[in-house]
Amino acid sequence: MGILLRNILAVLPENGKVSESEKDVIKETSICIEGQRIVAIGDIPADFKADKVIDGHDRLVIPGLINCHTHSYMAFMRNVADDLSFMDWLFGTIDPIEQKMTDEDAYQGARLAIIEMMKSGTTCFNDMQMNIHQTTRAVKESGIRASVCRGLVGSGNDEGGQRRLREAFEEKEAAADCDRLTFMLGPHAPYTCDDAYMRIVSEKAKENHMGIHVHLSESENEIKQIEERYACTPIEMAEKNGLFDVNCIAAHCVQITDKDIEILKKHKVNVVTNPASNMKLGNGFAPVKKLLDAGVNVCLGTDGAASNNSLNMFHEMSLLALIHKGLYRNPQCVSARDTFRIATINGAKALGLENEIGSIEVGKKADLAILDLNNPSLMPANNLIAGLSYSANGSEVDTVIIDGKITMEGRKVLTMDEQETYARVNGIIKRMGLADKEY
Amino acid sequence: MGILLRNILAVLPENGKVSESEKDVIKETSICIEGQRIVAIGDIPADFKADKVIDGHDRLVIPGLINCHTHSYMAFMRNVADDLSFMDWLFGTIDPIEQKMTDEDAYQGARLAIIEMMKSGTTCFNDMQMNIHQTTRAVKESGIRASVCRGLVGSGNDEGGQRRLREAFEEKEAAADCDRLTFMLGPHAPYTCDDAYMRIVSEKAKENHMGIHVHLSESENEIKQIEERYACTPIEMAEKNGLFDVNCIAAHCVQITDKDIEILKKHKVNVVTNPASNMKLGNGFAPVKKLLDAGVNVCLGTDGAASNNSLNMFHEMSLLALIHKGLYRNPQCVSARDTFRIATINGAKALGLENEIGSIEVGKKADLAILDLNNPSLMPANNLIAGLSYSANGSEVDTVIIDGKITMEGRKVLTMDEQETYARVNGIIKRMGLADKEY
Repeated sequence: MGILLRNILAVLPENGKVSESEKDVIKETSICIEGQRIVAIGDIPADFKADKVIDGHDRLVIPGLINCHTHSYMAFMRNVADDLSFMDWLFGTIDPIEQKMTDEDAYQGARLAIIEMMKSGTTCFNDMQMNIHQTTRAVKESGIRASVCRGLVGSGNDEGGQRRLREAFEEKEAAADCDRLTFMLGPHAPYTCDDAYMRIVSEKAKENHMGIHVHLSESENEIKQIEERYACTPIEMAEKNGLFDVNCIAAHCVQITDKDIEILKKHKVNVVTNPASNMKLGNGFAPVKKLLDAGVNVCLGTDGAASNNSLNMFHEMSLLALIHKGLYRNPQCVSARDTFRIATINGAKALGLENEIGSIEVGKKADLAILDLNNPSLMPANNLIAGLSYSANGSEVDTVIIDGKITMEGRKVLTMDEQETYARVNGIIKRMGLADKEY
Repeated sequence: MGILLRNILAVLPENGKVSESEKDVIKETSICIEGQRIVAIGDIPADFKADKVIDGHDRLVIPGLINCHTHSYMAFMRNVADDLSFMDWLFGTIDPIEQKMTDEDAYQGARLAIIEMMKSGTTCFNDMQMNIHQTTRAVKESGIRASVCRGLVGSGNDEGGQRRLREAFEEKEAAADCDRLTFMLGPHAPYTCDDAYMRIVSEKAKENHMGIHVHLSESENEIKQIEERYACTPIEMAEKNGLFDVNCIAAHCVQITDKDIEILKKHKVNVVTNPASNMKLGNGFAPVKKLLDAGVNVCLGTDGAASNNSLNMFHEMSLLALIHKGLYRNPQCVSARDTFRIATINGAKALGLENEIGSIEVGKKADLAILDLNNPSLMPANNLIAGLSYSANGSEVDTVIIDGKITMEGRKVLTMDEQETYARVNGIIKRMGLADKEY
């Protein structure tokens, strides 16, 4: 199917290719999509046949946002556990819910997460799940793109750890038919995977040419535990056990040393910052300015809805652009331009997909979000790259195209039944006795 | 006109009156509005006649949000000056725009601001303007509620300062017919009003039983200037000159000492915190936890769109609830419950309107925002008070009632032409040569 976006404002790399452009610019142009890909930008080829024309009047098209760290199934836990100490949050609320969670609950959670992400312009996400099959099921149906991993916890050669690894590979094989899905291995964290298990996982990743998705240096408590157990930092522990010998996405990296930053830089580790979650759980602020200055590839994630409580990347972009200016008392650090790249092409790089997604370029997959400028948040329609971080709230996203297919139009998700999903997730919290629980 | 909200979830003070309730709760109820006021909550009186019935299915009604510090005219400057040093922002961009600004520009800016605020659930705002008449004009037409002041700068008995004071009183008299409007005096800041002028303004406020709206202790540079000139802090300078002898709303209070907090507490000064603006301009974080612990009335504001760049109070609530948890490494400080009161009843108190607005109570004015729960951001519909701060983005607001009148329905503002306003503000930035300016 051919789709034409006609006379539309677009965020484009200045010189056509993001890899050759210092910055992005806003230009009025036309964009031709054929099959999965963008086939022309600017002049419309004489032989291009559009089955669908989208008029660009009062519209802005951006590359779809890439949410590099989330736990989609947790969306049904939105707003169930707030303003609690970390231990009460995890062991008093989240853990007991996960004990009661069925496969169907995890599936409905993933559906809700995908609906929310599409409605706020996210076209690709990087997920860690206990029941990986429920994410892949929801991804396939919804038309979204995702990188998924089975969350792995274990010690040495224990049976649980081995079973989880098997599940990771079984699902990878079972989902081989869907090229919107890619797979990583997901050792949960240095405090839930021991030295020996970490080594097993990183060896498996090397053998199978897979990347790794891991939580590192999130809380003070984690730093303390790892220091006591291994006399090193979580990042040093991960390095020692080979996690950085493959492409690695490290979520959080809040509590890190200058030596840690050197290690991350040396191994080209991708750092996903999750500002809302890190603040909400009282963990602090990742040193994003230092990481950027060191040349580390920083990307952006929402974390799960149980600790954010939103999967809206526009909200996350505004946090990223604002908090570091306050922290460093510097209105010029982590600019809107930086933020936009962190939320798009840097995420694509982290996933090894920088030649496929993350910018609007001829030859890349058509993963796009189209915003309606007829919203006060983007009026006047000026310096829209700044507007994406500072004033947009995500509800301006009108249409979403993923892999060349329209998955949302006029804010209506075309691939899933929104109302049914809302009814299902309300049903889950009622069944679990959470709906009437006093906050 | 009688309006009935039938079988609707509502955020209500636990014991009916906010002054007698430690906390707010969510209950399904019905609400009867007659004329400007709420006349019944719960059972519908037998003699109540509803001209309009709003079905509460999948709806949540909250007291309208109160934005306690903004400069509405600046809305047309949204996204025109970002990621700049404070001096480049103010003197390189904002000042030159204000030099070129016409009365009509200020009026269109105020209209855009009011549209944006209504569409994100704000029903009352506290404004400081150079051209106060343009704000009152837009307020009258739009149906919103506002407290306004003419921004005052001056030294001693200089003619400019005297003229500005006259304008403040002239507008107050001219607008006496609109009871949605209240007036304060607005000495801009300790670095733009000298000792003598501050005393003149505070005497005028006392004589006329008016409150004061002032910027205090916003930046490090201000602290330094006032220390050099008066050998005291901006808050001490304000106290010395009588600003706290009347009801005072002090915006920012970012850079303050423990002694400053004692002074604020002693004089019952209302502090408006503006998290986005303080971060964006590199000024830091106000010590909100300390202020709350000291018993200071803290309320919330967006500041102007040139330094935020949004007037969306949901965005501001999320910032308020998140940043202090990160700063103090404490997931329990500035809770969602605190945040909700800070954005509603605390604002009403600051404006001296706590018996009229700020909570849903029988006898109070009907200033309400109705949210559509059919949005992924509020699904599942659980712990909605937490949802208001952590996951809502403002676009869930479907209907707004102010002073007993419906001003927005189905997200369409009924009192103003949105499209015309967007065209006008786009016209302003084109005329000023800002539209094509490189960011």
